[in-house]
Parts: sequence; C-alpha cells; structure tokens
Amino acid sequence: MDAEIIAVGSELLTPYRLDTNSLFLTAELNKLGIRVLRKTVVGDDREHLRDAFRLGIERAGIVISCGGLGPTEDDLTRETVAELLGRNLKRNEDILRGIQERFRKYGRAMPDINAKQAMVPEGAVALDNSRGTAPGLWMEAGGKIIILLPGPPTELEGLFQKEIRSRLARLSGNLRLYTRDLRVTGLSESDVEQRVAPIYTQYSGTETTILASPGEIQLHPRIWSEDEVAATKLLDEMAKRFTLALGENMFSTAGETLEEVVANNLLEHQATIAVAESCTGGMLAERLTNIPGSSSYFHGGVVSYSNDLKTVWADVPKELIDAKGAVSPEVALAMADGIRRRTGATLGLGVTGIAGPGGGSADKPVGLVHISIADEKGPREHAFRFPGDRDRIRRQATQAALDMVRRHFLYTTRAKA
Amino acid sequence: MDAEIIAVGSELLTPYRLDTNSLFLTAELNKLGIRVLRKTVVGDDREHLRDAFRLGIERAGIVISCGGLGPTEDDLTRETVAELLGRNLKRNEDILRGIQERFRKYGRAMPDINAKQAMVPEGAVALDNSRGTAPGLWMEAGGKIIILLPGPPTELEGLFQKEIRSRLARLSGNLRLYTRDLRVTGLSESDVEQRVAPIYTQYSGTETTILASPGEIQLHPRIWSEDEVAATKLLDEMAKRFTLALGENMFSTAGETLEEVVANNLLEHQATIAVAESCTGGMLAERLTNIPGSSSYFHGGVVSYSNDLKTVWADVPKELIDAKGAVSPEVALAMADGIRRRTGATLGLGVTGIAGPGGGSADKPVGLVHISIADEKGPREHAFRFPGDRDRIRRQATQAALDMVRRHFLYTTRAKA
Repeated sequence: MDAEIIAVGSELLTPYRLDTNSLFLTAELNKLGIRVLRKTVVGDDREHLRDAFRLGIERAGIVISCGGLGPTEDDLTRETVAELLGRNLKRNEDILRGIQERFRKYGRAMPDINAKQAMVPEGAVALDNSRGTAPGLWMEAGGKIIILLPGPPTELEGLFQKEIRSRLARLSGNLRLYTRDLRVTGLSESDVEQRVAPIYTQYSGTETTILASPGEIQLHPRIWSEDEVAATKLLDEMAKRFTLALGENMFSTAGETLEEVVANNLLEHQATIAVAESCTGGMLAERLTNIPGSSSYFHGGVVSYSNDLKTVWADVPKELIDAKGAVSPEVALAMADGIRRRTGATLGLGVTGIAGPGGGSADKPVGLVHISIADEKGPREHAFRFPGDRDRIRRQATQAALDMVRRHFLYTTRAKA
Repeated sequence: MDAEIIAVGSELLTPYRLDTNSLFLTAELNKLGIRVLRKTVVGDDREHLRDAFRLGIERAGIVISCGGLGPTEDDLTRETVAELLGRNLKRNEDILRGIQERFRKYGRAMPDINAKQAMVPEGAVALDNSRGTAPGLWMEAGGKIIILLPGPPTELEGLFQKEIRSRLARLSGNLRLYTRDLRVTGLSESDVEQRVAPIYTQYSGTETTILASPGEIQLHPRIWSEDEVAATKLLDEMAKRFTLALGENMFSTAGETLEEVVANNLLEHQATIAVAESCTGGMLAERLTNIPGSSSYFHGGVVSYSNDLKTVWADVPKELIDAKGAVSPEVALAMADGIRRRTGATLGLGVTGIAGPGGGSADKPVGLVHISIADEKGPREHAFRFPGDRDRIRRQATQAALDMVRRHFLYTTRAKA
C-alpha cells in the first residue's frame, strides 16, 4: 500500500519552519509496510487544500495530513476535506464534552471557537486525542483511506500510536520495510561511497542511503519484503560485508551515537574519563554528559580557554605554552595527562586547536586540532585538519576525540585477547 | 509572482532526511517578492517527477527544483523535464570541458557517466556551478519559469546567489516581503500568545508566526508590500507594541541568539565571564564559545560533575555539599562565587540541577535547577523547575543562565542611569 503525506500550515511555507512530522509518520508507515510516495506542504488555503487532497486521493491508497485542525478561522482542513468528499459536518456531543472537560481541568471555560473541533464529517471515525483538543479523523471513501491528524508532534504521535497504527496494521499485508542503521567515522563520504558501492549494487531489490554529517557517515540499507527471515538474513549479510569494507571505522551497526558507544565502552571497562578542552569549548563534555547516567563514568571537564587556566586546571607548564604555543601537540599531550592526574580518572582527553574564523596562520591554519588521550601508560596525540566553518570544525573535533576513546578500548581489548 | 518548490530525491521520502533547501530558497524568494505557495517532495521516479513538474507549471509562475541532477542512473530530473517540455537534450561542450577540468584539478579523470551532466535541454540557459559538476538550468516555457538546481546545499546556494537572484530580480515587481525576527525568553508560548494576539490581530494584511523552542519564543511579523517605507513603519510599530507587551523578556528585535546578545553585553562592558556547571555538562560553555572571538570575554569553565571537583575547581566547601546536597541554592551560590574568584573573571555563573531521567526525588524533582550569577558584590541565585526530557531541561537551563547575565547588565546599566 502507498501513502501520501500532506503537511498543512502557512507557517510551513515560511523560511522558519519545516514539516518534521513526516519523518515520524514515514518511519511508522514503513514499519507497517506502507511506502510514502510523495509529500506536499500547503498553506491554510481552502483551494490549495482541496487540490492537495483531491490529487492525493487520486494517486495513493492512503492520505495522511497533519495540521489545520485547530479552533481558529485559519484552520480549514476538516471543513475542506468534508466538502471535497461531499460529507456534512455534524457535532459530536462526546467529543464536545471531552474538550469542555479538558478546559475545566485547567480551570478555564471552553472558548466558543473550540466547539468547531467537535464537528465530525458524516461517516468519519473521530479518534481520541488525549494530548490536545483536536480529535483525529479517519475516513474511507472509494476504497481510499483519509486520515486527518493535528499538527503538534506530541498530539500526532500519541494519536498515531494509540489509534492509527492498529487500524492500518489490519489493512496492510505482510510486506514490511526492513532496515539497518550503520555508522562510520574517520572516513569521508566519498571514501565510504567508494568502498560500499561495489557491495550494495550487487543487491538488487535493496536501496542503500548514505547520509553524511560532520565526522559521521550513516549507511541505511533497506529492503521491502514479505519474508522477515529472508530480509533479515540479507541485511545481516550486507551489514557484514559493509563492516568488512569499512573496518574499524564502523562504530555501530545498531544506530548508536558515538557518545553512546563510548559510554558503553567506559561502563564495560569500569573506566572513568575527564576532559580538558579548548577550541571545542565544552562541546566534548556536553556530548559525554548528554547520556543519562553519565555521572558514573564522567568525572568532569575543564574548558581552559585562557592559557593561564590550562596551567591552573590541567598542569600544563607555562613555559611549554610559551615555547610551543597553545595549539601544539605538546600542549595537547600535557592537557590530557594533566586533567587525568588532576581528576584521578582512568582516561584523560586534551583538545586544543583553531576553530576559526580568526586566529589561523600559515603553519597553524584554521581547522588544525591536536587531540590527545592519556591513560596510565601516558598520553598519545593525533593532529587533525578539519574543513568547514567554526561549528563544523568543533563538531568534527569532538567526534575525533570520542573516536580516540573508542579505538583505545578496541586496541587494549585486542591486545589482551 | 508565485513559486512552487519541488525537492527531488528518494532519500527525502525516508525517515532519515528532510528537504532543508526549501528554507533557504523560500527566504531568498520572499526577499525578491516571490511567494512560495506549495512544496512537493518526490522520489527519483520518472512518472512522479513528470507529474510534479506538470502540476507545478500549471499552478505557479515559477517552479524551482532541487536534486536529481547527478551523474547516476537514479538522477532523472533533467531528462524528465526536457521530455515534459518537448525539448531535445544537446551536449554543451563548454560545460563538458568544465566538468573534465574539475576532475583534473583533483587529479582524476572524468568518469564517463558524468558526461550526462553536460546535456542541456534546447533553449535552456546552463548556469555555472562553481562548487560542483552539475550546472543549474534556467528554462522558460509558456510564460512560466522552470529552474533546476542541484541538491547539495552549498552548490544550490552558490548557484542561487550568483546566477538566479539577479535573473529573478529583473522579473519581479516591487512587491516584497518585509519581516522581523523578535526573540523572547522567560515566558511560555501561551503567555506570549496571550500578550501579543490582541496586538497582531489589529494589523490586517500582516501575518505573525510564533515559533517555540526550549527556553525561547520567536515572533515573526510579516507583511507583503510594494511600499518599503510604509511596510517598515508598520513593522516598527508592531515591534514596538510587542516589546511593550513582553517587556524585559524580549531579548532581541534583530534575530540575534541569546549568546550573541550576552557576548555583546560582555564586550560593551569590557566584562569577562567564567562558568561552573554541573547538570548542563558543558552546554553553557559551549554556547558562550560558539561565537567567533569569544576568547576575549570567556575565561573558561569547569564541568564539575563529581562533588569532589566542585570543591577542587570552584572552592565549594565539602561540608556545604554534605549539609545541603549538590543540588541546592547554597551550592549554586558557592559555585558562581568560587569560579569567579578562581578565574579572576568579572562574572561567575554556577549551575546545578537534576536533568534526569534518574536522580529526582519528592523535594528535588527532575527539572529542578539552581542557577547563580556572581559579581564583585557577591552571588545571587534563582531556582527553576523546567519541564521536558534531559535535553530540553539542559537547554532551558543554559537559556536561563545566559538570560541572568543579560538581565544583570540590564539592571546595572539602569541603576547607573
């Protein structure tokens, strides 16, 4: 079965807002074996709305819209679709009571305009929205299914999980989308493409999407199949061959973030970590602590922007900074080692570099970052030259630093084996 | 003049990727007085592509597409549009040489498949893409304009700036979109709505979008006008009334981020800052340093996750932590004061709280965050209770901390006046 998604709202046609609901809907529909063939964004305009629904119903088996079910005059989805299908709107007293009840709970009387949200097209099923006042609507017409959902993501997601999924599951066959989320770091997009294209092109009937962000490439092989066992086997095989082709650069075959992988490494080895960062300005600590429970492995970090604080907080000798410069392999090594000793953590990380746009020179250009990792045997250092603007350079630097921690465990585990 | 945007690419119909080019295109088109009436996302499918362009050309004066101009078999935009318009494709030798030259520069021979990118529909203008191999294409047919652009954002943006803007400017009249970007913190979306709705509803012909993110509400009043002076005057008046209604909570009327406003405050007062953060885990330092040149006001920060490090790095007395708990007004005050004294900065910030999901209790629930700011007169503290998940709580906490810095300067400036 095929679906089209219509995102409704004039704000979605401004430079400020994107329709993000369709990502959630696509993921959920795909799991049910339903392909999304087209997405349309239209404003709160009666004629454009009618047009979008008319075309959607002509072309696809399922049309799902989000937005335009609010109480204001701008919200036209319900009325327009009812008119298009030639259905009268009738007030549903249960829904009206529910909306009134909702307002009462918050100590307010229901404004008159909200009564409009209790209007239901003839023959439609009103779907209970426990997180807002606009019910979802499920309609069938000429063998097609039309689903109207409210725009706020929590309401839409709640309604989908509670009311839509089971209804669609009953209708869809055994065809399902099977997919993997493989993640790679330390290689460029074209490096990855070059290594994996000879593999995925051998698998007809599958599609592999390659998605790049600073310091990370994701591979998403996908297959539509009615046979779960066969699809799983095929994706296992593809994932195995991708892993062989990409080697240690593959850090997850299960869609984990690099900080999640590092967190698991640290927990598994009962190790702790502390960081001294300069150009990344706190982003490295932020990533290590965005994981619930990170206090069990993260001791702390310093953002030693000034040279003084590199000395005070991470024991970097002032003479060393004077002699080599704050952005140097030597200072990175001293930062990693110093912060490790100061905090008593198993591992120390030191990051110093030039994030730009200013501060670069011929021998120390913007994008140059020295990263060091220290354990009980001492610190090791690696120099990187990252492309892009300040934000991209900082992101790539944190990714490289986390990756050095991951590889540290990879090699020590291997050495012990 | 009205436009439709068609984003082409099967990856845009997966749960992993959104069309973001349309935000850039919409902003640029609006500036030229061109409205975007509809956005469509279609896969790399000949029939769906033809359909999308056919409908777009029927409905709008300008159709702009992005994507599908690559060298692979999947890339069908050029061929499909040529076919739809009944134009033959002819090889453009200049473009072919340009592509070959590009490959040579990187020390590679041009793969045969790239020759396809030099094919130009009869009557089309090929637009030079200095950042990639796919030229843009500008076509006119039956009074309509059809523009095909490559998908990678840097290529699309470069082409638009260099080739498209001036061509469209010649065609569009005096109608322009005038807009403002006003930013508010410290109020909920419904608080803001309640205060500003009585204002914007008085201005017919204008539209005001309200956009909420954790700890921040943006107001975007917009008006289409042929009269720049009148439009500017109207928006000035609206902005003034919004500012009166929202008071000190309005932190920018020029689309600045809160960290930009704080950076300007610090620079203006020749003040410096240092932070001691716990639950925000580095995010506060990261935001203060994501601005080029931040080293002139940011001394440094500590992420004192463990209690020990609060004592070692920010002089928080161990007995105080034992007596009051790490998440307490007293510890926040001591952190702000301690980090200020330790670093010699003009201002110190201390943040301690429970970001969750674990670690909450009846009297110290998840979302409780104590934030303190210290100056030469000593520290002040404020307790917050933020809703949402770990990430939202951390974002709101950094927003509140930055806002305390902004208000500090607001009050000291006022006190001096």
